[in-house]
Amino acid sequence: MTIDQEDVTEHAGELDYLIQWLSAFGQTENGGVTRLLYDKAWREAQSSMQDKMRELGFSTYFDDVGNLFGRIQGTENTPNVILTGSHIDTVIDGGKYDGAYGILAALLAASRLVRKYGMPKRTVEVVSLCEEEGSRFPLSFWGSGNITGKYNAENALKVADTHGVTLLNAMQAAGFGKGDHVNARRSDIDCFIETHIEQGRILELEKKCWAPVSHIVGQRRYTVSLSGKSNHAGTTPMYLRKDALYAAAQMIAEVVHRAEVLHNGLTTTCGSIVADPNVSNVIAGSCRFSLDIRHHQTDVLEQFSAAAIEFFKSLANQSGIGITIDKWMDVEPVQLDPGLTEMNFKIGEKAGIPIRKMISGAGHDAQIFGNFCPTALLFVPSHNGISHSPEEYTDTEALEIGIQMLMRVLFRLAYN
Amino acid sequence: MTIDQEDVTEHAGELDYLIQWLSAFGQTENGGVTRLLYDKAWREAQSSMQDKMRELGFSTYFDDVGNLFGRIQGTENTPNVILTGSHIDTVIDGGKYDGAYGILAALLAASRLVRKYGMPKRTVEVVSLCEEEGSRFPLSFWGSGNITGKYNAENALKVADTHGVTLLNAMQAAGFGKGDHVNARRSDIDCFIETHIEQGRILELEKKCWAPVSHIVGQRRYTVSLSGKSNHAGTTPMYLRKDALYAAAQMIAEVVHRAEVLHNGLTTTCGSIVADPNVSNVIAGSCRFSLDIRHHQTDVLEQFSAAAIEFFKSLANQSGIGITIDKWMDVEPVQLDPGLTEMNFKIGEKAGIPIRKMISGAGHDAQIFGNFCPTALLFVPSHNGISHSPEEYTDTEALEIGIQMLMRVLFRLAYN
Repeated sequence: MTIDQEDVTEHAGELDYLIQWLSAFGQTENGGVTRLLYDKAWREAQSSMQDKMRELGFSTYFDDVGNLFGRIQGTENTPNVILTGSHIDTVIDGGKYDGAYGILAALLAASRLVRKYGMPKRTVEVVSLCEEEGSRFPLSFWGSGNITGKYNAENALKVADTHGVTLLNAMQAAGFGKGDHVNARRSDIDCFIETHIEQGRILELEKKCWAPVSHIVGQRRYTVSLSGKSNHAGTTPMYLRKDALYAAAQMIAEVVHRAEVLHNGLTTTCGSIVADPNVSNVIAGSCRFSLDIRHHQTDVLEQFSAAAIEFFKSLANQSGIGITIDKWMDVEPVQLDPGLTEMNFKIGEKAGIPIRKMISGAGHDAQIFGNFCPTALLFVPSHNGISHSPEEYTDTEALEIGIQMLMRVLFRLAYN
Repeated sequence: MTIDQEDVTEHAGELDYLIQWLSAFGQTENGGVTRLLYDKAWREAQSSMQDKMRELGFSTYFDDVGNLFGRIQGTENTPNVILTGSHIDTVIDGGKYDGAYGILAALLAASRLVRKYGMPKRTVEVVSLCEEEGSRFPLSFWGSGNITGKYNAENALKVADTHGVTLLNAMQAAGFGKGDHVNARRSDIDCFIETHIEQGRILELEKKCWAPVSHIVGQRRYTVSLSGKSNHAGTTPMYLRKDALYAAAQMIAEVVHRAEVLHNGLTTTCGSIVADPNVSNVIAGSCRFSLDIRHHQTDVLEQFSAAAIEFFKSLANQSGIGITIDKWMDVEPVQLDPGLTEMNFKIGEKAGIPIRKMISGAGHDAQIFGNFCPTALLFVPSHNGISHSPEEYTDTEALEIGIQMLMRVLFRLAYN
């Protein structure tokens, strides 16, 4: 059953309306969206989303951390659930599509299936996950983390936002975390299907419409701190220097070059650098830079990171520079369910649209579910690859194709 | 006539007292000194310095920009003057020795010569130059610049301090710039002799006491601005990146390395770097860094700078990175008077102390006089090479040796 262009054009307006409707909750001056976990815009969005779900025929409920579910009971009355959706929160001044699109695509796909084919055999739930971005609290995946058992109430005591409000207090102020709703932890989820914008340029550049994601990369993040000796730029001969910025430059140049020539999908980014005293005529006495390494295979990630660190230490040692390396993030790669990925790829081929498999370089709720139940992640293109910005954009027809593909996937899972 | 250790020890206290006395004007909480051109501490210091000069037997006068002179009239009554001294101003929270030592050494050397040998044949003037550092106004060498004709009253209209006070207003508020004193411009200076701390570690490391300086390096300073493309660190493959920080790192690593392997005294410093948005998980869209290149020969400076710039442009071009290079300082090298340098070196050898010739990597009033009249610059060691800091230090005996050497130099010039 190939995707029909007329059908796409006809339905595209429906999603477009919902995208604009949802982006009004937390709209910023720049035309972006700020919806932080449990804040006013978030509460209004989740509450209005509940109304919207009801309007579209879903029975709805919140769990006790604020994940919102819209349920369509399957005719076979088995206890298990096919879960689909994404997250409602955004980064500060983020875009209209990251997260939001995955919820709305699921809502439209499930409700259209019901209109077209009647009630499914297996129960489908659309989820508007409360949090993924980690924008308010120094913790991410709060929604999927509570469902899958990665987090529980204890974690809510330990973290606070920049105003000192704990996650627990914020949650309770929003009406959750007091046992008034069902416990978030689940054991009835058969599989999780997430649709998301790519947040990269690969699909657009390769003129592909859609991509089942096979893996989500693992990430190692480090802060490298170098201590040399601050000195006069004119009176200190080259052979007497301990130039921390020069050492940092050599490290960054080498490690990014190594990633560049690998051509195996590994990415290495040094995005942040701070030198001290950071004055043109003084040799930098200290310098700190960030290192972000990602790949979808643990051994590749491990090998590259270990070699980078060894190189840094050896260069520092030769240069008489002190070095400390702080690994502050270590997330393992996640392979999404190979059976679902293959099934989705075949559904894509049958749909007669240009598709490819791909690897996600960004984190998603699907990576939390991926360690918990069979999980699929489905990408649509991002214009210019821009994300986490008011300029985030995907054209309506591309978004509609994503919905029509999700309908095919859910049909296979819930109606067969 | 060798330097006598007992004599050094006996006299050392005299200078020590004066160093502490002068550092009280503008003393900071950190034990440093802040005396900015025409500010309260500066005015008190110059006024007290005038008293001190009178006390030591000098006839004194200010010129119309605030340079203070202490004169000992020569018995031959020729119109010309042997000028010796340094600058009274400091950087913000600077040390007790930079500039101050050169004035006090000149005061003590000249007055001791008079006590020991009577009035000189040729007139000697000790000068407390009003400004060298450029710490208050974006202009340096205001004192020597007015004496030598590099600057005049017009320049005082055009620059202002960070509070918007023009140099002219500040000067007039301090009682200068209104024609009440003699014009600063001079045509009667036979030679200028400046004693200064090295501000580097070479003398200390080589266990040398004293150094006639043959050249003051020229300096080129640039700001290199790179514009790439800010992008997601996870979803942007290496081959799609325009990473401005990576490009900067490659440039800094290469250009500093080139200077390191030259071994010809050229220095290259990239002391300042700013990346944007400077976030660990975002590829830097832009990056700006400083480049400071110094050498005592124009052709070496020129050749190295041109090659560096060519390399930067070529690398930027290959990486698809935009580049602008702003040269905001271009100071030619100055060769000090070879005859004086040679004479001083021989005087040093006769004194039986460990000496060497050297090149100054920092700027000094001597470089302004060096283009105007025969000029000599004489260094004493700096402990750990630290300067422009409250921790600037030279032990009293090392400073006393500098005075005894200056006495020998002035004796040769003024008494023979």
